[in-house]
Amino acid sequence: MTALTLHPDRLFPADPASRDAARTLYKSIAGLPIVSPHGHTNPAWFADNEPFPDPASLFIVPDHYVFRMLYSQGVPMEELGVPRIDGGPLEMDKRKIWRRFAENIHLLRGTPSRMWLDHAFHEVLGIEERLSAANADKIYDHIAERLERPEFRPRALYERFNIEVMATTESPLDDLRHHRKIKASGWKGRVVTAYRPDPVVDPDYPNFVGNLAELGRITGKDTKSWTGYLDALFERRRYFIENGGCTSTDHGHPTAFTADLSKTGAEALFARVSKGNASAEDAELFRGQMLTEMARMSLEDGLTMQIHPGAWRSYNPTVKRAFGEAKGDDIPMRTDYVHALKPLLDRFGNERRLTIILFTLDETSYSRELAPLAGHFPALKLGPSWWFHDSPEGMRRFREQVTETAGFYNTVGFNDDTRAFLSIPARHDVARRIDCGFLGRLVAEHRLDKDEALEVAQDLAYRLVKAAYKL
Amino acid sequence: MTALTLHPDRLFPADPASRDAARTLYKSIAGLPIVSPHGHTNPAWFADNEPFPDPASLFIVPDHYVFRMLYSQGVPMEELGVPRIDGGPLEMDKRKIWRRFAENIHLLRGTPSRMWLDHAFHEVLGIEERLSAANADKIYDHIAERLERPEFRPRALYERFNIEVMATTESPLDDLRHHRKIKASGWKGRVVTAYRPDPVVDPDYPNFVGNLAELGRITGKDTKSWTGYLDALFERRRYFIENGGCTSTDHGHPTAFTADLSKTGAEALFARVSKGNASAEDAELFRGQMLTEMARMSLEDGLTMQIHPGAWRSYNPTVKRAFGEAKGDDIPMRTDYVHALKPLLDRFGNERRLTIILFTLDETSYSRELAPLAGHFPALKLGPSWWFHDSPEGMRRFREQVTETAGFYNTVGFNDDTRAFLSIPARHDVARRIDCGFLGRLVAEHRLDKDEALEVAQDLAYRLVKAAYKL
Amino acid sequence: MTALTLHPDRLFPADPASRDAARTLYKSIAGLPIVSPHGHTNPAWFADNEPFPDPASLFIVPDHYVFRMLYSQGVPMEELGVPRIDGGPLEMDKRKIWRRFAENIHLLRGTPSRMWLDHAFHEVLGIEERLSAANADKIYDHIAERLERPEFRPRALYERFNIEVMATTESPLDDLRHHRKIKASGWKGRVVTAYRPDPVVDPDYPNFVGNLAELGRITGKDTKSWTGYLDALFERRRYFIENGGCTSTDHGHPTAFTADLSKTGAEALFARVSKGNASAEDAELFRGQMLTEMARMSLEDGLTMQIHPGAWRSYNPTVKRAFGEAKGDDIPMRTDYVHALKPLLDRFGNERRLTIILFTLDETSYSRELAPLAGHFPALKLGPSWWFHDSPEGMRRFREQVTETAGFYNTVGFNDDTRAFLSIPARHDVARRIDCGFLGRLVAEHRLDKDEALEVAQDLAYRLVKAAYKL
Repeated sequence: MTALTLHPDRLFPADPASRDAARTLYKSIAGLPIVSPHGHTNPAWFADNEPFPDPASLFIVPDHYVFRMLYSQGVPMEELGVPRIDGGPLEMDKRKIWRRFAENIHLLRGTPSRMWLDHAFHEVLGIEERLSAANADKIYDHIAERLERPEFRPRALYERFNIEVMATTESPLDDLRHHRKIKASGWKGRVVTAYRPDPVVDPDYPNFVGNLAELGRITGKDTKSWTGYLDALFERRRYFIENGGCTSTDHGHPTAFTADLSKTGAEALFARVSKGNASAEDAELFRGQMLTEMARMSLEDGLTMQIHPGAWRSYNPTVKRAFGEAKGDDIPMRTDYVHALKPLLDRFGNERRLTIILFTLDETSYSRELAPLAGHFPALKLGPSWWFHDSPEGMRRFREQVTETAGFYNTVGFNDDTRAFLSIPARHDVARRIDCGFLGRLVAEHRLDKDEALEVAQDLAYRLVKAAYKL
Repeated sequence: MTALTLHPDRLFPADPASRDAARTLYKSIAGLPIVSPHGHTNPAWFADNEPFPDPASLFIVPDHYVFRMLYSQGVPMEELGVPRIDGGPLEMDKRKIWRRFAENIHLLRGTPSRMWLDHAFHEVLGIEERLSAANADKIYDHIAERLERPEFRPRALYERFNIEVMATTESPLDDLRHHRKIKASGWKGRVVTAYRPDPVVDPDYPNFVGNLAELGRITGKDTKSWTGYLDALFERRRYFIENGGCTSTDHGHPTAFTADLSKTGAEALFARVSKGNASAEDAELFRGQMLTEMARMSLEDGLTMQIHPGAWRSYNPTVKRAFGEAKGDDIPMRTDYVHALKPLLDRFGNERRLTIILFTLDETSYSRELAPLAGHFPALKLGPSWWFHDSPEGMRRFREQVTETAGFYNTVGFNDDTRAFLSIPARHDVARRIDCGFLGRLVAEHRLDKDEALEVAQDLAYRLVKAAYKL
Repeated sequence: MTALTLHPDRLFPADPASRDAARTLYKSIAGLPIVSPHGHTNPAWFADNEPFPDPASLFIVPDHYVFRMLYSQGVPMEELGVPRIDGGPLEMDKRKIWRRFAENIHLLRGTPSRMWLDHAFHEVLGIEERLSAANADKIYDHIAERLERPEFRPRALYERFNIEVMATTESPLDDLRHHRKIKASGWKGRVVTAYRPDPVVDPDYPNFVGNLAELGRITGKDTKSWTGYLDALFERRRYFIENGGCTSTDHGHPTAFTADLSKTGAEALFARVSKGNASAEDAELFRGQMLTEMARMSLEDGLTMQIHPGAWRSYNPTVKRAFGEAKGDDIPMRTDYVHALKPLLDRFGNERRLTIILFTLDETSYSRELAPLAGHFPALKLGPSWWFHDSPEGMRRFREQVTETAGFYNTVGFNDDTRAFLSIPARHDVARRIDCGFLGRLVAEHRLDKDEALEVAQDLAYRLVKAAYKL
């Protein structure tokens, strides 16, 4: 058996001066509550407060970070229990899935998944041995036993994690029943929703035309007309604010393209796409126009806007056919922001009352495009390093490439952006450590005074996110 | 009150071995004179030697690095005294502007502007407290008092800064009266001009057609014909060499595109653009052709050529309308060099007597394109990290990504490229410290012997710039 | 005289904790045999085992890394003895060439070439003084004397270098006479070939049509028909496996573009290109189709596939005309993988029995495209940092940008990819040191346990390369 340990200095720079400064900074913020302004946890967990399932169903089956790495090395997804949508056979024995994972855990060396898992195992579940093929069953039993205890139910963990507020993400077609149930329950946890309109603003979204009809049904608006459609979208925003504590929207487009058409032009475009026969150009133009419309609505209702562009979703058709979407085959693409955002920025970039948070999967845009844009436009802020780049090296590159041009105050703290609830403390801890390590290096290199670094550390861990997301 | 201090080890790597080596290297070059081969200071300062104005007009109003950061956080430019070109109201109370800045100085944490300001405050102006809202008035008074003293006039500061030579940048339409006045005055300072022909070679430049006419008037050439136009440009180069000590040209094109048309093709193109009705394609083609023409002239008269491509100037139309150009809204774009420069390089790339210095705002080109090109073509050298990347992290990335393929000797030392005269010592000091830090790391990692590092440090701080710019 | 020394800690991180861990890791793998799965040494060396020529012909004339740097600084290639193909005059005095090089050796400071040379000088040739203009003749004589000794002949050096296996690269038109001679000789050294079909699959390759005819002649297949052509290519693969111990193919296309045409479409395309009148589009499409055909064949015969895209070969027409190809003027281009590889990946990306190793000259693709692709597709692995990026900083960036998303196990160890045989130990040593430095930092930052790092170090230096290349 090998001990599983989390070193108190982990992730701090290795040189003594930076590490020493990082340690001091981290100490001052380690106890701050978690503010999680964007993520994909399931609100039903907190509404129903049922126990989490078995270890494999909790840590492996739903985590595309984990099963993609095993798949890339030749382990069939079926053998990891990833559900097939085509009715093909599947490993149903959770313990076998767990063993398969444990045998291959070396594949995760050096990845953030490994850090998140180790943290959840050790800090959340009290495991003191490093997982391996040899102790797979023992650890499976340990976790399974814990998950049955009341203190491992969702609400108890939420409280233990010291979460101040956490956002989920829902479609405008969602009735927010879980959020309403949480609110009605009297539980003190704050679980808010975010408004993600992709299903009703992206003509390439599955069942787009049906979604428009459903949007009309639930709002009582005529979503066959451009103005009725816009009214319906705005109405759902209001519903999300009132029933889900919503403070933000989120937009997951393939590119950052925006448009600002005349009303006539927009109406004509809507007439085409709403019938379901959008060309690829129409679809892109419509998505772009809708970002501008959403910004306009944000000026009215105050929702902070998030743009998450640049992923080619379901790149692998074989996997998509067999397993569906989000199965580890979403691949980043080169993403232009300067040309793409111009129509939106020409119209709304100078609005001080608007907050648009930009994310990127293309790190080349950090220093070239995003930092210069955010360092100028009042409406723009930069989201933290995202997805594949939500990792120690990725976070370091973000700060190193962004800070000198955009400063700290055009960034918005950390997003965990996860559906893996048990990894949330780990993820925020990594972000805090890396930020303190970056600040610690600035202090050690005499580029920032220690009193200022202490203030910035608070800002990055707590204040900026609350301000940007109005939480 | 918090003390304002500049640590003697600032900007050196934090690990003891690299820092120790960096310290030794820096010590050997810290006293070298400043050679400033490219910048935008006002030659009138040195011709007339009048006192600088009040603190706000010196440090805030003209510095787009500074006011952009406050603007991005919601401070209106009007309240920072940035002049409106549309006659709108403006804060005229300099002290109020200064206070507004002092209240927001935390926004500059971690940016090079903050370092430059701290250096100028402490080293040039003798301020010993960190600027804050609380001491804004006191520091304002301190600076204002200093600026009235004779030893803070431009020529005295030039001498105190130990500047050996400094280049300004002028349009071919400039009569160089200030440079002539400096020369005639008998003052020993060496302020030379650089020839920046954008106003007469870029069809998209404001009043391009009028500029051509003016060029004809001052040279007595027929700038309506292609050959007359070329003669006029060459004649002004001669004028700049003789009257302004000019040793270089500078070209600020949106892209790095070059062309090498036949004489007939160039004449036909000139016929179109010189009448003011250039299409976007014509304008780009003409700019590209003019880079090749300028290289041809450089082979004749020996002027070193600088290409500064890749900025989308005045990206924000609202700001441009109200405040004009260069107001912090110039945004870098992805820039191709490999295809763009081929026509120019096919024609002149192998010329040993020609020096073309390339700059980039797109850091992705460092290791992929610029270093391989400069590591092959005798005519090419790489300019230092530029604009947003003229910063500790940016300079470090430049050396890390360029050196292994282009070596040190295809680079040309440092450019401060600034209009902020009081920041010039700070900027050169940052460059020297970062270069010594990089060299110090090479020494500590046993990748370069110490005696060689000492020689390279001299080269980077002094020798290479003098050779490349013939200064 | 200055001593030439190789510090035992060279290339390790400078901070004490990382360095200490790196030292331990390196110690555990420093003695492992060299596995060189891809390179360009001349098999005739090992077949004939003749002495290497004089120092200049060994180290300068054939090394475009070296002479490009001198050329970029104005030293004519003729004076470095680089053979002209146009019959122009050439320096023939090898000692003069050597002196010219020695005078300019400072140009290589900070480059990998300098490290490789120092290592070969010191470790292989026993030189104890740093080369300079002053001792050029003495060192020339020293090397010349050594090269005449039997222990400096190719086979003796191969054995002394502790090479377990080394691949060369040949065209399908090669008869592998040298490999057959080596095999027949009974010598224990293992020199295998790799199948590089560019001359017969790239319509832009010099003499493509003639090459097809030759391919037909040596295989007895009808290479005028699409199926005969494919049969001939497959037949040569078999020949390479049987006669040259071949385990891999290699493809040096200008882009990563792939295609998956119908049989009819492919036949029609082949009909056009095989007659020698391919348009640029046809040529690109054909190269793309052939990558897919090669992958199909690899599924049959098990050859590992390498794709080396993104170089603009012979960018400088003046140099190409005078000196021919591969003269230091190959320039990397921006390279897209996500769109380019999709046809190939759609067809074969999920094949567990196939190994496609991707390389890049565009480092921006590491974190954005290559790591996400390799972290998902079973058929993909990432080759090490390549060509200009086969350097300490380049290797560090590779690990830092790739590991968190692709892990260690989707990479394949090191390639020296060189024709400079005496530099092979140096290059593998640099890679091992940088990898141990990276792992050492992970250990020092408590991101990887030491026992795991020790295992990964073995994997990166030895196990992964043997598995990926089936060696």
